[in-house]
Amino acid sequence: VTSVRDEPGLRSETIRRANLSSIVRELHANGPMSRSGLVRRTGLTRSAIRGLIGELVAGGLVAEGPAALLGTPGRPSPVVRPQPDGAVVLALDIEVDSLAAAFIGLGGHLLDHVRIDRPRGHSTLTAIVTDLVELVDTLNARSERATRALVGIGVAVAGVVRRADGLVSRAPNLGWTDQPLGDRLARALGDDVQIYVGNEADLGALAEARRGAAVGADHMLFITGEVGVGGGLIVDGRPFTGVAGYGGEVGHVAVNPDGLECSCGAIGCWETEVGAMRILRRAGRTAVRGRADIDALLADAAAGEPTALAALAETGRWVGIGLAGLVNVLNPRLVVFGGLFERIHPYIGPIVDAELDRRTLPAPRRLVRVVAGVLGAEAPLLGAAELAFEPVLADPALWLNRSDVDIVETAKIAVRRVVA
Amino acid sequence: VTSVRDEPGLRSETIRRANLSSIVRELHANGPMSRSGLVRRTGLTRSAIRGLIGELVAGGLVAEGPAALLGTPGRPSPVVRPQPDGAVVLALDIEVDSLAAAFIGLGGHLLDHVRIDRPRGHSTLTAIVTDLVELVDTLNARSERATRALVGIGVAVAGVVRRADGLVSRAPNLGWTDQPLGDRLARALGDDVQIYVGNEADLGALAEARRGAAVGADHMLFITGEVGVGGGLIVDGRPFTGVAGYGGEVGHVAVNPDGLECSCGAIGCWETEVGAMRILRRAGRTAVRGRADIDALLADAAAGEPTALAALAETGRWVGIGLAGLVNVLNPRLVVFGGLFERIHPYIGPIVDAELDRRTLPAPRRLVRVVAGVLGAEAPLLGAAELAFEPVLADPALWLNRSDVDIVETAKIAVRRVVA
Repeated sequence: VTSVRDEPGLRSETIRRANLSSIVRELHANGPMSRSGLVRRTGLTRSAIRGLIGELVAGGLVAEGPAALLGTPGRPSPVVRPQPDGAVVLALDIEVDSLAAAFIGLGGHLLDHVRIDRPRGHSTLTAIVTDLVELVDTLNARSERATRALVGIGVAVAGVVRRADGLVSRAPNLGWTDQPLGDRLARALGDDVQIYVGNEADLGALAEARRGAAVGADHMLFITGEVGVGGGLIVDGRPFTGVAGYGGEVGHVAVNPDGLECSCGAIGCWETEVGAMRILRRAGRTAVRGRADIDALLADAAAGEPTALAALAETGRWVGIGLAGLVNVLNPRLVVFGGLFERIHPYIGPIVDAELDRRTLPAPRRLVRVVAGVLGAEAPLLGAAELAFEPVLADPALWLNRSDVDIVETAKIAVRRVVA
Repeated sequence: VTSVRDEPGLRSETIRRANLSSIVRELHANGPMSRSGLVRRTGLTRSAIRGLIGELVAGGLVAEGPAALLGTPGRPSPVVRPQPDGAVVLALDIEVDSLAAAFIGLGGHLLDHVRIDRPRGHSTLTAIVTDLVELVDTLNARSERATRALVGIGVAVAGVVRRADGLVSRAPNLGWTDQPLGDRLARALGDDVQIYVGNEADLGALAEARRGAAVGADHMLFITGEVGVGGGLIVDGRPFTGVAGYGGEVGHVAVNPDGLECSCGAIGCWETEVGAMRILRRAGRTAVRGRADIDALLADAAAGEPTALAALAETGRWVGIGLAGLVNVLNPRLVVFGGLFERIHPYIGPIVDAELDRRTLPAPRRLVRVVAGVLGAEAPLLGAAELAFEPVLADPALWLNRSDVDIVETAKIAVRRVVA
């Protein structure tokens, strides 16, 4: 139940803030747009748009440029652009075999970016946090500018995350159980700026929905993974993560009661049939070099090597078995394959489609398409940025009213270093 | 992206309607409430509440009664009640072995209700629609009053439903494929009043969430069925049914690749392991009398008959296997068992819990509880009523402004009969 307080002052203030939010969301998602485009997309009047844009320009979140020449009759409309420097987020990504950091500006502008490999295997939380702070320093050394208007920090991690405080309940490939990632990053990077932690699959889904293969799809299921398999669901443009952020663990749906034991302790989970280790074993290979093993397998498949092709085909069949059930339960419009599945999609696509034909109910089957993602390994990082932008998009007015002093204060965050 | 037009007149009109909606939702869901209770629950001021209640009283949707004596100090606050006669819906339920119709008033008041058994097995759409119209006539003959302010018709059906137009894509136990239930009911009952068709499991979920075992649970998964198995998901109090209403088909998640062929054509779907037919077969019985066979099995189990108990225990194990995956994907706070599962819950509850302990990831496992529903066989019918109330709850102002002539016109609906 949502209500708006029935007091004239609060009333118009609430609407003003909602309208600012509509405009900033529109520009952040879709890029530069004419004033008349904004009128059309937001339903606001021309005069209202003019006033609100004025506020956003003064607050540094957007800029107005020369009139667009669009070949349409009438007075050309000025073009409004999101200002990448006006609101910047720090995005971090903790994968099983790499770490990344990036500054990303309003509009999804990648201002600076660094990714380093790390050996697969267990790492302490302290070691990972130390490495991440070093990456942030690297970025800061390269650019003063990017930290000027830091509005939030978003973190993607290959684990089960409690959204409320960024506790990582379980990340078997990092060897973590109940690790307070959110709190430790706040201690290391400062708590002037809010830190948002999410599961990498959930955030990959968000990125593909906002800026990738699923733009415009109202209801999308993202399937990703390497060793483990995860899923992210977007409904009406918003992430669906369950009651505490733990949802989307599609890798742990039982598909084979006579199958292998899973890292979670159960038997025959989907990831025991479709994860990287099983694919390599099907092709008679032992995994030693992490992602490079799959690269080698894919190179062999491209050269027509039969055991590689057979291993991928059998994997495609199991991908289809698990996916059919998920489509029956979730009725998505689009399934996007990320990570490992994005890479093997050319080999398994038709096999997955055939399994879906056989195993999905006709009505949801007719509606759904399965495609490869387009953001590759950076999807979780880009999704972490979107998570951190959310407060600015939801209520830009809060950021317009920050004094210069506040902005200087928050700028300190990225140069402070108190690794515990 | 939601915007409110920036014109003062429209602006306050929009807010007035949203506030009326908050009040009517509150009263419909929670029953009579003092004015001060409404102030507390809606966040509206006392004077705003007074004005809005005045409108709702004049429009016949609510009534005000004498002040409540709540033992709290200060002036007692008048009590506001939803008016059951002020907005009435017709609810219909098409189950595999019975049909039901009811008039239900605002606040969830069951005004009149009739259910008849029908033999299991295939039926034409025409036969079912004819029977339903007869049930409506029975209700009308008993009561003139109930149809006075008919605001909508809600229909629950044991099949896969396209929400947009009530097409039943698939209802194997009725023998239906692509049957236009919504259109045919509109022709039979008149199209003055909107008809909303939903899947029985989705609607059972809605009823348990609004008025049953899951009141107050923000995120609930409902598992129900007899021969087939279905699911309904409620997220933030609202049904989640996928992009076209086809979601929640949890019965068709593959759990056993070496299992039985399913009515959907796939192998080893969950319902082949946990549906009524399999339970009876496990106990060495042949199903001939529909629901009565399960009743007999439960009577034997209550008497300690070993094959009945063993069949239920093995079924509980498979319920747990499938449910563990769903909990990992959906991270619900509460799982509610309806239909068959509500009835067998006393026998399988501990076994399901033990399987969840073994197979669910620790974080979502700690959060979730599994309980039996409380609405029994009427859950889908009550949910169909909630579906039909939705437009009145979302925008009561539209119903306040209807002239008396409109109301008389819509009253004709239930006595018109044009069965095709």
